[in-house]
Amino acid sequence: MNKILIILFAFLSVSVYAQNDEATLKNIYKQSLTNGQSYAWLDYLSNEIGGRLSGSENAQKAIEYTKAELEKLGLDKVWLQEVMVPKWVRGEKEIGKIILNNENSTIKMDVNICALGGSTATSDKGLQAKVVEVKSFEELEALGEDKIKGKIVFFNGAMQADLINTFEAYGGCSKQRYAGAYEASKLGAVGVIVRSLNLRQDDFPHTGSMGYLDLPNDKRIPSAAISTNDADTLSKALAKDGNLEFYFKQSCQKYDDVLSYNVIGEITGSEFPDEYMLVGGHLDSWDLGDGAHDDGAGVVQSMEVLRLLKESGVKPKRSIRVVLFMNEENGLRGGRKYAEEAKEKNENHVFALESDSGGFTPRGFSFDCSDANLAQIEQWRSLFKPYLIHFFEKGYSGADIGPLKNDTIVLAGLRPDSQRYFDYHHASNDTFDAVNKRELELGAATMTSLVYLFDKYGVNQIKNIPQIKD
Amino acid sequence: MNKILIILFAFLSVSVYAQNDEATLKNIYKQSLTNGQSYAWLDYLSNEIGGRLSGSENAQKAIEYTKAELEKLGLDKVWLQEVMVPKWVRGEKEIGKIILNNENSTIKMDVNICALGGSTATSDKGLQAKVVEVKSFEELEALGEDKIKGKIVFFNGAMQADLINTFEAYGGCSKQRYAGAYEASKLGAVGVIVRSLNLRQDDFPHTGSMGYLDLPNDKRIPSAAISTNDADTLSKALAKDGNLEFYFKQSCQKYDDVLSYNVIGEITGSEFPDEYMLVGGHLDSWDLGDGAHDDGAGVVQSMEVLRLLKESGVKPKRSIRVVLFMNEENGLRGGRKYAEEAKEKNENHVFALESDSGGFTPRGFSFDCSDANLAQIEQWRSLFKPYLIHFFEKGYSGADIGPLKNDTIVLAGLRPDSQRYFDYHHASNDTFDAVNKRELELGAATMTSLVYLFDKYGVNQIKNIPQIKD
Repeated sequence: MNKILIILFAFLSVSVYAQNDEATLKNIYKQSLTNGQSYAWLDYLSNEIGGRLSGSENAQKAIEYTKAELEKLGLDKVWLQEVMVPKWVRGEKEIGKIILNNENSTIKMDVNICALGGSTATSDKGLQAKVVEVKSFEELEALGEDKIKGKIVFFNGAMQADLINTFEAYGGCSKQRYAGAYEASKLGAVGVIVRSLNLRQDDFPHTGSMGYLDLPNDKRIPSAAISTNDADTLSKALAKDGNLEFYFKQSCQKYDDVLSYNVIGEITGSEFPDEYMLVGGHLDSWDLGDGAHDDGAGVVQSMEVLRLLKESGVKPKRSIRVVLFMNEENGLRGGRKYAEEAKEKNENHVFALESDSGGFTPRGFSFDCSDANLAQIEQWRSLFKPYLIHFFEKGYSGADIGPLKNDTIVLAGLRPDSQRYFDYHHASNDTFDAVNKRELELGAATMTSLVYLFDKYGVNQIKNIPQIKD
Repeated sequence: MNKILIILFAFLSVSVYAQNDEATLKNIYKQSLTNGQSYAWLDYLSNEIGGRLSGSENAQKAIEYTKAELEKLGLDKVWLQEVMVPKWVRGEKEIGKIILNNENSTIKMDVNICALGGSTATSDKGLQAKVVEVKSFEELEALGEDKIKGKIVFFNGAMQADLINTFEAYGGCSKQRYAGAYEASKLGAVGVIVRSLNLRQDDFPHTGSMGYLDLPNDKRIPSAAISTNDADTLSKALAKDGNLEFYFKQSCQKYDDVLSYNVIGEITGSEFPDEYMLVGGHLDSWDLGDGAHDDGAGVVQSMEVLRLLKESGVKPKRSIRVVLFMNEENGLRGGRKYAEEAKEKNENHVFALESDSGGFTPRGFSFDCSDANLAQIEQWRSLFKPYLIHFFEKGYSGADIGPLKNDTIVLAGLRPDSQRYFDYHHASNDTFDAVNKRELELGAATMTSLVYLFDKYGVNQIKNIPQIKD
């Protein structure tokens, strides 16, 4: 019966932690929903600044704006952490065309494309070639150099629609985008067109990072994303006429690394100032939209966590930092730099929470931590029930906080509803109007609640479940 | 220990029902997400037909369209059930103005209003009067006839933003809309303007039903909704100048009842054909938008339940009916008629599920049934976990199925995420583009799964939890 009793006490012990905390959480949610700051911050970041690609003028504006806003909150410290970041610039709007050569005439159909982040340009005249469609690297490999050489490879693998977690569907084909040019170039391809990572049929091309890895410069072929509607159009056209050609032109360019910054604010802990808890998102975004969901939402929610803690009169025992990371999208330099410096300074980070999955209704958290720690965190679950927060599972936390991983830290990721995320991800429609105020604010309150509970109870400090004699 | 064991067995017994069912549910979700029909049906209802107010030509078109589509599904029966419905027509686009009379000039500011459903018209010239702002019936009462007589009453109670369930916030002030004119007229008011039931700040006025109850015709004063932005503008203007006037003009009209229909389809049960399970939504909608969320979503999801059951090769033991109710919005005649006829015919309805809370990501169900039945239903909970369906609570089911209530029936309502529902509810932006395909399809699959499990296991038939000797 011992095991049964442990299960029961794990269940019953929730109430031990729920007494004053219920009121605190209620107040946190109320403040966020009725008197929150996150939505106004996001309005500014999206509409007054806009897309914030690393190394851009807008990224610098976002650094200055968020630093100034954090300084208004009366935190104990606010500072910038230097970090060198890559600089890639899209240049002129890309042009893409399907070219059907009939006996007596040529038909050119415009399609919606955008250069993938990090891609090389085409020549000034653009690039035109026949097209080979594949849906996977296996298909590419099977076709071999013979069929690929001199062609444009069209990666048309679609996100798997029957996966409930859309991030899983994304993970299933993001390799095409990142390494499509690399793999195709090795077989002699001259360019790559990739189906946008979007579950919806629409006209938006979705950018995102790609890499050439160890390819020499002369093998680095241009790579662009095509909208899902136009990917289908191209695929159907190819089925009718395998000899059609594709034309595209892009003028993107890579520059030398430039100096940029992570933005950091801290409430210093009253009892354990040397134990750090981090909450963050990334300040950079892709350039096509305004980076409202990715990751303006995570940035303003993270700032809001510290504001709500102060508003709620919580005096944290541990030091709580908000970190707005630079360069998540195309380098992760900010996340790496932060972890490096934390290690050099021997800072003991006990907890880190990232919000980088859009500003949608929060459903819970995934945790990258030990089973024992997760079991302890789950004891707070019932406190979240009134807010419909039900998801507490092991899993991925966030890219920027990943470099902090060690044997003891608890890494966590906010898990909002994922159904609409890839409608906007890395595309020009990732704008302020796509974010619902309440959903954003619920996310901020949910993050604040977890930070509050973790600061109050820790997880290593929790006493073992009381021993009951049979 | 007996209680503990019961809890444990209640928990463990889930697996009894989970064996083949896991695969069935997986297939249902896959079919809905990869090969579903609901979104295309909604496209037609929203974009080819549009708003479907009871008694309108569009409502008739929707009856014909959905009946024809149900007939294509190869159900055992499809028919129309006659029902007389009220007919109210909005007429010309309403005009609303705030009128500031200064010493030497008059300033007129246009505001966004719409007649509330069922309201009388103003005169052809419109109605102009001074304004008294109140936020509740208590405030109105306290002001009394002296202060109200000859004025327009402006009900400006806002939905409470810190309630997580937005339907609760709606319930908290929908009385203003329904009975505002009734209460104000009794104190001599000449018209009523009501803040739109919308948690967002925007420019859309939201209509909805209002009633004059027992007021004689000459006391029936015109009543209109004003957008949340303009409600705030009016309130601020009143704070500066209590003598301002409000002007509005509307030409809406009530006609005699007309013949309309509920649309019904049935798969006849193989073992218990006389036990009926119902799934439904309402086919009518308000006239301002296209009724995409309210309740086009519920209509197409309900149709999809029967299609998915057939696609999945499920042969229901009980008779399963889809009912598309007419006139939920301004009369509930369809729901009442259906229940009346079911009673006359002694049809044993064991279960009814309504979807009428928008086509958003489904979170679960609320149940209007006995505790014992709910406990039995909860044994299926773990089957829903992969689909992030976590909400199984006692509560409201749906307006149309409410009249079926008796001591034994299980009434259920689909509970989608409610955060954005009132952004669109009864307003001109309730259009197809506001519905996300995946969210709609997840809802249909979730409903189908519950119907499948209920048909397979029933709830009265479930054996008691096995008795274990201590």
